[in-house]
Amino acid sequence: MRFLPSIHHPSDLRKLTVEQLQELAGEIRQRILEVVGKNGGHLASNLGVIELTLALHYCFDFEHDRLIWDVGHQCYPHKLITGRNANFESLRKAGGISGFPDPAESPFDLFSVGHAGTSIATALGLARADQLLGRDTRVVAFVGDASIVNGLAFEGLNLAGLLDRQFLVVLNDNNWGIAPTQGAMAEYLAKFRTSYLYEEVKQRAKQVLPRLPLGQSVADALSSIKEGIKATFSPHQIFEQLGFMYVGPVDGHDVGYLIELLSKLRNVRHPVLLHVHTVKGHGSDFACKEPGRFHSPNAFEVNAGKVTIHKGSGKSWTAAFSDALIEVTRSEPRVFAFTAGMPDGTGLDKFAKVFPRQCLDVGIAESAAVDIAAGMARAGLRPVVAIYSTFLQRAFDQAFQEVALQGLPVVFCMDRAGLVGGDGAVHHGFLDIAYLRGLPGMTLLAPADENELLAALRFALRHSSACAIRYPRDNVPESMGDAPPFELGRSRLMRDGRDATILAYGATVSHALDAAELLATDNIFVRVVNARFAKPIDSEMVATALAADHPVITVEDHSITGGFGSAVLETAQELGLPTERVVRLGMPADRFIRQGTRASQLAECGIDAAGIAAAVQEQLIKAGRRQHKRAADLAQQPAGAEHSTAPVSDR
Amino acid sequence: MRFLPSIHHPSDLRKLTVEQLQELAGEIRQRILEVVGKNGGHLASNLGVIELTLALHYCFDFEHDRLIWDVGHQCYPHKLITGRNANFESLRKAGGISGFPDPAESPFDLFSVGHAGTSIATALGLARADQLLGRDTRVVAFVGDASIVNGLAFEGLNLAGLLDRQFLVVLNDNNWGIAPTQGAMAEYLAKFRTSYLYEEVKQRAKQVLPRLPLGQSVADALSSIKEGIKATFSPHQIFEQLGFMYVGPVDGHDVGYLIELLSKLRNVRHPVLLHVHTVKGHGSDFACKEPGRFHSPNAFEVNAGKVTIHKGSGKSWTAAFSDALIEVTRSEPRVFAFTAGMPDGTGLDKFAKVFPRQCLDVGIAESAAVDIAAGMARAGLRPVVAIYSTFLQRAFDQAFQEVALQGLPVVFCMDRAGLVGGDGAVHHGFLDIAYLRGLPGMTLLAPADENELLAALRFALRHSSACAIRYPRDNVPESMGDAPPFELGRSRLMRDGRDATILAYGATVSHALDAAELLATDNIFVRVVNARFAKPIDSEMVATALAADHPVITVEDHSITGGFGSAVLETAQELGLPTERVVRLGMPADRFIRQGTRASQLAECGIDAAGIAAAVQEQLIKAGRRQHKRAADLAQQPAGAEHSTAPVSDR
Repeated sequence: MRFLPSIHHPSDLRKLTVEQLQELAGEIRQRILEVVGKNGGHLASNLGVIELTLALHYCFDFEHDRLIWDVGHQCYPHKLITGRNANFESLRKAGGISGFPDPAESPFDLFSVGHAGTSIATALGLARADQLLGRDTRVVAFVGDASIVNGLAFEGLNLAGLLDRQFLVVLNDNNWGIAPTQGAMAEYLAKFRTSYLYEEVKQRAKQVLPRLPLGQSVADALSSIKEGIKATFSPHQIFEQLGFMYVGPVDGHDVGYLIELLSKLRNVRHPVLLHVHTVKGHGSDFACKEPGRFHSPNAFEVNAGKVTIHKGSGKSWTAAFSDALIEVTRSEPRVFAFTAGMPDGTGLDKFAKVFPRQCLDVGIAESAAVDIAAGMARAGLRPVVAIYSTFLQRAFDQAFQEVALQGLPVVFCMDRAGLVGGDGAVHHGFLDIAYLRGLPGMTLLAPADENELLAALRFALRHSSACAIRYPRDNVPESMGDAPPFELGRSRLMRDGRDATILAYGATVSHALDAAELLATDNIFVRVVNARFAKPIDSEMVATALAADHPVITVEDHSITGGFGSAVLETAQELGLPTERVVRLGMPADRFIRQGTRASQLAECGIDAAGIAAAVQEQLIKAGRRQHKRAADLAQQPAGAEHSTAPVSDR
Repeated sequence: MRFLPSIHHPSDLRKLTVEQLQELAGEIRQRILEVVGKNGGHLASNLGVIELTLALHYCFDFEHDRLIWDVGHQCYPHKLITGRNANFESLRKAGGISGFPDPAESPFDLFSVGHAGTSIATALGLARADQLLGRDTRVVAFVGDASIVNGLAFEGLNLAGLLDRQFLVVLNDNNWGIAPTQGAMAEYLAKFRTSYLYEEVKQRAKQVLPRLPLGQSVADALSSIKEGIKATFSPHQIFEQLGFMYVGPVDGHDVGYLIELLSKLRNVRHPVLLHVHTVKGHGSDFACKEPGRFHSPNAFEVNAGKVTIHKGSGKSWTAAFSDALIEVTRSEPRVFAFTAGMPDGTGLDKFAKVFPRQCLDVGIAESAAVDIAAGMARAGLRPVVAIYSTFLQRAFDQAFQEVALQGLPVVFCMDRAGLVGGDGAVHHGFLDIAYLRGLPGMTLLAPADENELLAALRFALRHSSACAIRYPRDNVPESMGDAPPFELGRSRLMRDGRDATILAYGATVSHALDAAELLATDNIFVRVVNARFAKPIDSEMVATALAADHPVITVEDHSITGGFGSAVLETAQELGLPTERVVRLGMPADRFIRQGTRASQLAECGIDAAGIAAAVQEQLIKAGRRQHKRAADLAQQPAGAEHSTAPVSDR
């Protein structure tokens, strides 16, 4: 590569000509394709914003000025030109470059983000603070058309429109979030796409630019540009009505024109919305053709133009959920499924093909999704909100007011519950048990394998009030056999043993069973209980465990603060039972877990098989029971009696 | 009253002429003034929507059709004509009529609401469900101009604009929420208010209506009305761009005209936004003059035109916070305070008068408030978000991503934390400890009296990461003397005693001290610890309490699920200490507490002095330690030695 290796700092961009920048864009594109091909990651969105990113860094000085990304999955070009090219092979790997902006990596990343719609409000805070402190910074919020329909983005626009200073919102409009953008705003933006050829827009704007009289103020000049565009291409009144000066739509792949335009816009002392049209996947035929599939692919290979995305072996929880929902909907016609902009990630794309009238993608509008679902539940349907655990945080208040307070039977299916691997801290679902557990009438349950997922869903859809089912970004484990039906607040005994009890919730049951196998080779025999419910907790099960006079280990793929283990402690206290022998395993209370493989993260938190086994051993040693046990073993234990991993009974 | 007593059902309205309805409106106004004058409650908002409510119930059949209120504090006229007039004196009282819509009261109330911006999305769910189920219902969402700037309302509009069926959004525009509405949208709506006389609007529309040719379809007819209005009075393009047919603005106090218009609009098979201008407090001179003061007054009296609002004696926590914030800001110029539409309720109105450049009301946009605050914190300011605990639920994800994940020192000052009295279940702040505790780096603290509030605020503003301070809707208790500075994770011993330990958090410390006084008269001497921190918990304090071999009672004005008591259990378990002697007092886990006085609610939850004292006695009896204690007493106890309520030491 000719230019990229010499870009150590964004100011190096200003040493290049427009033609050289265009060549650099090609190199960045190649670099991203290479590394994402190896590591997996966000592809199409990054390929689409290369020229725009170059132009922004060319025209602004983001060491001093403020650049805020929305969602942040389009930050790879930004990372490559802000000193992270050399280390870019480590993208999304443990100890490597995060797939999202990260202040710990670079002063050019002001906020870690991964959730949508936040950039305008956050940038507004920076803008007002800098104004108040008398700092002459310029502020840019970068937002996609999928994010701008989010309520928070609207709140930001509504408040930023009254600013009395420079404030630039760059609307990156590719008519795609992760799936095509939903709602009236999307149709509204689409009108501009279908009505005008972008070449025309560009040509027209170019005609206007050179005709600017010298000595004219920049604001006036801009106004002429804008009027020029307006005359031909109707303005976006919606943004102007919110107080923004609207400029666009312009071609987001013409770096020269973007630099020309941004060098004017940077000096406008008023909120400006620059509407840029980009093509998701630009410069890569296969990514352009299937931007959904190449939004965030696994590692892939390109051979003679044919792209093969590496499939992990095994079946994902997402696919299992999709199948289970299709299955239950065959006998429950009142099911209606929701996704907030993630039909693929939640598995609803497959469901929608089978039941197109019973599925709605509301776009990135989690709050609205839950309220619409509540309305449907009130009208007698059985809504299922398929959502990532971390994104349900966006609808917590709706889960409280519109669902729990009304006692409505909305079913939340929380994918990505627990550690998520490469996406890291912005995406872990580590709080759902803690924040949902306090809602009166809310039932929390989690399946241990695919059969249990179907059984859990059947239970939830028959239950009279709200349920939340959690499962992780992982493959389903090997089947644990037929799943007995879920009964409210009843656990399932998976394996008996007298040296310790492991109370595991959800996907960690399989790690607990593996731990039990490991321990058995060391002649330690543990009881493994699949809790099934975090609320209500099976208090009989807790009583049995605590009565056994041996260590009790709770395991959850969730923060140890306020989660399943805490629910066990609360139950024990209510029963007046001792808790000194309890140990809670889960995500640590006071730090965030960074990106890596899910397996490495589980290990880091001590909730993989090895970690659970180690915790059991540590407790046995602590209890000074190990030697005692060994002696007892020799005297009484019939060899192999407790080695089975098959379900023993339904509790 | 001539008409109101005979309105048992909304269909009774149709027996009246327009003139009689106008008279009925006067009677409803009088009834509301009477009852709110006695009980306190929402006044100005209800006085403003009487004619509009009558017209809606006249034109729709809400036993079959769907009416969804936003915020719901404007539902009194609706309650009075849906069978709740006779019982209306019990408004906001225990066992009486709720101040918000409540499905438990009437089938005309479809959702309990108290939070803003939800009506459009909820109504959209009903509309889509009814459409899917082949039900021919009409759906109306009622929303105020203060709510429509909320992100969730925008998400609802964006999604509802594409509906292919009847869907009416009534925008009640009085340019007020609880305080004047904020943001560009408010200025945009205000343009219509200032540009045109409403009389003109009304006259113009009236001219159009009679000229409708017979046989013309309703939609066409409506289109003529609309065009007629449009021709004179620019339409609200912002709503049309979101797919709504826009009608308005129209006079919301002319019941005859409203009926005429709504009887047409009800048959339009397309989303319609009807923009209605009302006057907050209409028909009451004093409420119109000061709509903020009369938004939700205490009981009041009118004598010779002069209105006296009953002041509770004592100083509210809100006022104490206001004073404390002013005090700390004098020596910390980086403070910047936020409210989301509640300058009066949070005490920031007073602060803003002293530090106008350091205060921002963002309107009902809690999510944006927190992100703007985070932006400011990143730029080096010390933002303080003054917010009701229940409304911070709206910004939970922002508290996670923009605040905790970045490690930014935003200070949340959570008013109305705990039981709120007359507002009931929609407003209790019962989850904040549970949902914030899991956020790494988040510090949770609570003051026991006014001096402690100042000390807590001083601590939070010097702390390097986020803090959340909670205090209830109540008066501050009698001073507990000088407050020693807050030290991270250090409790404060308030009173010593050997029979039991009460670990109290925040405002419940004063109840615990009162309980100790009560118990002392019965020769039971309890130790009272003011925990000060729910996170990090003072583990030394927990260890001391659990080592004492007597009952340990945790007390919090919060759900017992996942709250302060659970944090104590977690700490005990981590320390390997027994928890069998612990009892947790707080709000019950599995039901919502209905409206009443705060005192009655505290009693219901057993967290007033009597309840705490009873819990201590019960534990002593259970422990069989009472007789033993009495005997020991006679032998050893120097009389009166432990009766002091003064602070004993700083732990």
